Amino acid sequence: MCDKSHGDIAQIVADSGAVGADLLIAEQVTELVTANHILYAQGVVDAFGHVSVRHATRGDCFLMARNMAPGLVTEQDIIAFDLDCRPMNADGRSVYLERFIHGEIYKARPEVMAVVHSHSPSVVPFGVIKQSPFRAVCHMAAFVGVQPPIFDIRDVAGDGTDLLITDQALGAALAGTLGTNAVVLMRGHGSTAVGDSLRHAVFRAVYTEINARTQAQASQLGEIIFLSEAETRAAALSTEGQSDRAWNLWKRTAQSVHLSLLQQALLTEQ
Amino acid sequence: MCDKSHGDIAQIVADSGAVGADLLIAEQVTELVTANHILYAQGVVDAFGHVSVRHATRGDCFLMARNMAPGLVTEQDIIAFDLDCRPMNADGRSVYLERFIHGEIYKARPEVMAVVHSHSPSVVPFGVIKQSPFRAVCHMAAFVGVQPPIFDIRDVAGDGTDLLITDQALGAALAGTLGTNAVVLMRGHGSTAVGDSLRHAVFRAVYTEINARTQAQASQLGEIIFLSEAETRAAALSTEGQSDRAWNLWKRTAQSVHLSLLQQALLTEQ
Amino acid sequence: MCDKSHGDIAQIVADSGAVGADLLIAEQVTELVTANHILYAQGVVDAFGHVSVRHATRGDCFLMARNMAPGLVTEQDIIAFDLDCRPMNADGRSVYLERFIHGEIYKARPEVMAVVHSHSPSVVPFGVIKQSPFRAVCHMAAFVGVQPPIFDIRDVAGDGTDLLITDQALGAALAGTLGTNAVVLMRGHGSTAVGDSLRHAVFRAVYTEINARTQAQASQLGEIIFLSEAETRAAALSTEGQSDRAWNLWKRTAQSVHLSLLQQALLTEQ
Amino acid sequence: MCDKSHGDIAQIVADSGAVGADLLIAEQVTELVTANHILYAQGVVDAFGHVSVRHATRGDCFLMARNMAPGLVTEQDIIAFDLDCRPMNADGRSVYLERFIHGEIYKARPEVMAVVHSHSPSVVPFGVIKQSPFRAVCHMAAFVGVQPPIFDIRDVAGDGTDLLITDQALGAALAGTLGTNAVVLMRGHGSTAVGDSLRHAVFRAVYTEINARTQAQASQLGEIIFLSEAETRAAALSTEGQSDRAWNLWKRTAQSVHLSLLQQALLTEQ
Repeated sequence: MCDKSHGDIAQIVADSGAVGADLLIAEQVTELVTANHILYAQGVVDAFGHVSVRHATRGDCFLMARNMAPGLVTEQDIIAFDLDCRPMNADGRSVYLERFIHGEIYKARPEVMAVVHSHSPSVVPFGVIKQSPFRAVCHMAAFVGVQPPIFDIRDVAGDGTDLLITDQALGAALAGTLGTNAVVLMRGHGSTAVGDSLRHAVFRAVYTEINARTQAQASQLGEIIFLSEAETRAAALSTEGQSDRAWNLWKRTAQSVHLSLLQQALLTEQ
Repeated sequence: MCDKSHGDIAQIVADSGAVGADLLIAEQVTELVTANHILYAQGVVDAFGHVSVRHATRGDCFLMARNMAPGLVTEQDIIAFDLDCRPMNADGRSVYLERFIHGEIYKARPEVMAVVHSHSPSVVPFGVIKQSPFRAVCHMAAFVGVQPPIFDIRDVAGDGTDLLITDQALGAALAGTLGTNAVVLMRGHGSTAVGDSLRHAVFRAVYTEINARTQAQASQLGEIIFLSEAETRAAALSTEGQSDRAWNLWKRTAQSVHLSLLQQALLTEQ
Repeated sequence: MCDKSHGDIAQIVADSGAVGADLLIAEQVTELVTANHILYAQGVVDAFGHVSVRHATRGDCFLMARNMAPGLVTEQDIIAFDLDCRPMNADGRSVYLERFIHGEIYKARPEVMAVVHSHSPSVVPFGVIKQSPFRAVCHMAAFVGVQPPIFDIRDVAGDGTDLLITDQALGAALAGTLGTNAVVLMRGHGSTAVGDSLRHAVFRAVYTEINARTQAQASQLGEIIFLSEAETRAAALSTEGQSDRAWNLWKRTAQSVHLSLLQQALLTEQ
Repeated sequence: MCDKSHGDIAQIVADSGAVGADLLIAEQVTELVTANHILYAQGVVDAFGHVSVRHATRGDCFLMARNMAPGLVTEQDIIAFDLDCRPMNADGRSVYLERFIHGEIYKARPEVMAVVHSHSPSVVPFGVIKQSPFRAVCHMAAFVGVQPPIFDIRDVAGDGTDLLITDQALGAALAGTLGTNAVVLMRGHGSTAVGDSLRHAVFRAVYTEINARTQAQASQLGEIIFLSEAETRAAALSTEGQSDRAWNLWKRTAQSVHLSLLQQALLTEQ
């Protein structure tokens, strides 16, 4: 575990002693800011939700924004956390209440490099249904699989919680329900998607939403032919190999949306 | 009750004699304009609907725009009203027909500091259903509770009304149905949300809409697991404590939308 | 009927001999262009649909754009038609195939001053349902009434038509089905709304769409309490009296949307 | 079949020896770029999907973008392919995995001049339904017909595929299912529309989506009166004759959307 509790990300990197690590981290921070803006521009997050990436050279740390709306995040807002979710350079800035979603998944899934938690609008409805029918209905969301798990906080913490994952025990329970899946739904709350890269996790978060929207519409039309288990495996391999195509478009869209958010400031400066 | 019937807001403040009141009111007016723009940008109001805030230093007055679309409101359009809804500085400008929604709620609920009335598109459908199923389905809208009330004007004024709250008696009846709740649905008309600050009321108005959209979608998928009463209490406390995060994002979005509404004027001036 | 078949609108006005008529018509043309842009910006029309206004000083003529997408209409595109739908100043420009919707309604309803025909997206579904349940569900759309008529072209022209109102006989049949109502649905096609002013007809076209969207959503939630006949009469009177509030907002939105359509041209000119 | 495997489009044209061919092709390339942007701006494609046009002077070739998001395509990204889908001037650039959809349809349907493949959001749900009810519900989408075919890759390649059309055999099977129709749905995947010009195919792709959205909404309201077979024939003829009206609007919208995607770059250059 990281034992430093304050300092800037560059210093943390310097401490790691890895050759070229500073450049790697600078790129990670830039891409993490873009990921925040993409998730907002694609409607996966609104003012709430968060995305993290495992530190490029230190597997026992991860990077995530301070407590703020993803659409407004800049490079100065990125903070490093150890896997117990202690901020390493918060300098008094507030951090997300639910950072334990991220830390505990990174502990439980060493291959996971990025985590997206959201209240993605079409996914929340599937999370509140008894015996939820949610599963992959189209090839682009094949990673959803044939039986994605649902985490109900009542099962582990009883009735009367605020539904939030606010400590390590709840985070560990959520990671347990996630298991080896790509995405876990959270009853009355949202969902969490993971990936082996930041782009991968963002791709999955966006297409989890699209699968939910598609399945909801289909469910009103008749009996659905879902992807078979074999199809989900084959299609996940093919389609996720194309995820850079989406990233490149979404990055441009996100820059446009972010610019419009800053329009007032830009006009004032003219 | 305020006995002045005309004059500007600054004068009303000066009359109140409170130290620093003029600054407080200037801030309230600015924030009320922002609230108008946020509610439009978030799709809670269109050309209709209105938002008010209780006067910062005089609890027997409230501030609200003149009769106009919220998306176009500027600081010059804000008018002070007494709790009987007599405008104090209208100077002949027309005022909202339904201002009695606001005045009567401020009378009945001394702790309420802001009121939003809207025809929020996903909420209207829940208001026209016999034995409406509306209740909190996700943590962000926990304040909706387990049985939000519905006001049917037919119950108090009989058939044949125009459905509008156009006098004190109707306003008082609506406030009675609202009771101690955060939100009241109005049959064939819309809904009204209250809060202990302007940001709080705006947050609730936005998430009432989101809860309705989420519940409507979920209701097509199977039997819903709603938030329990204990969960609504705990989650309302947690999530409403984070409402500034939303306000900061929505303010930027609202500025962007408001700018685009003024784009023609800006271009003409160049 | 007008007997001129070519010439510009100013000349037609001069011929009418009415004092001040040229100014009146200039205002009508400007407002008609705005109406086109509003209907596009509000999603009532896309590339198809059209809006007309009865000539301010000659009740036997009406103004409408040449055959083009409403969102792109400029003042130069407005053409005058007689009530048999012969263009008076087309100068070879193509005109809408379905102009007979307008001419025949103006003949049948002397008090109607404006007509909007659209494929408004939420209204088309209600037009294709046997025993369609469409009726006023909220106060803003009270003018929809309790049993708006549906025109099925099969009833008057048999199977195998192209569903379009392409001659006077079909226009007259549609006007007959409209009767004294504010709006008529057209099976497999769209709808047509009328008003006693351009703003009134635009208001009704927009709120017909909103009523359809609201009713469709409500119909999934349970049994609906519709506006009673007495309520539709009272509420139509109150809400339509506020239609300028909507027009003022929509005009600004429309200017913004129209500007963005012209953005490429503006950039090129810089 | 074309036997050149590399070189630029101009050279391919020069080789064709047709008088004026270079101008024709330059226009085709420009219009193909616009078609890409229109399909993105209208929501028919997102990062995925592709559009092609048969070469203006060589019927045994077609033009399509390299492997990238349609919304970002420029003239430099257009590549010529022979009908076996070998790129003629890729110069190492990656090409769409599913180009065989295009090549095999051009082989099977000599009159088809353009092909659009998409995951159009409202169409995918109709493709996953057993005994899908999809058919023309409104006049603008009359070309959909009364029983558009659905291609299920399981029927020709068994369980366990990635659902993609990645070789000539699968492309030929899809073309077989398309038959003489305007559009074919693809189970768990999307749909493909064809036309006798690029504008025609784009028109059909957009209105296939609109028909799906309309039918889905109508199906929740009651029993639908669909267009009869005779009506689909008559209405397709009338409405598709008006498709330039839509193209002209969509082109402007697409330019505006494309500009906003490039906004960041434009600002940087100032």
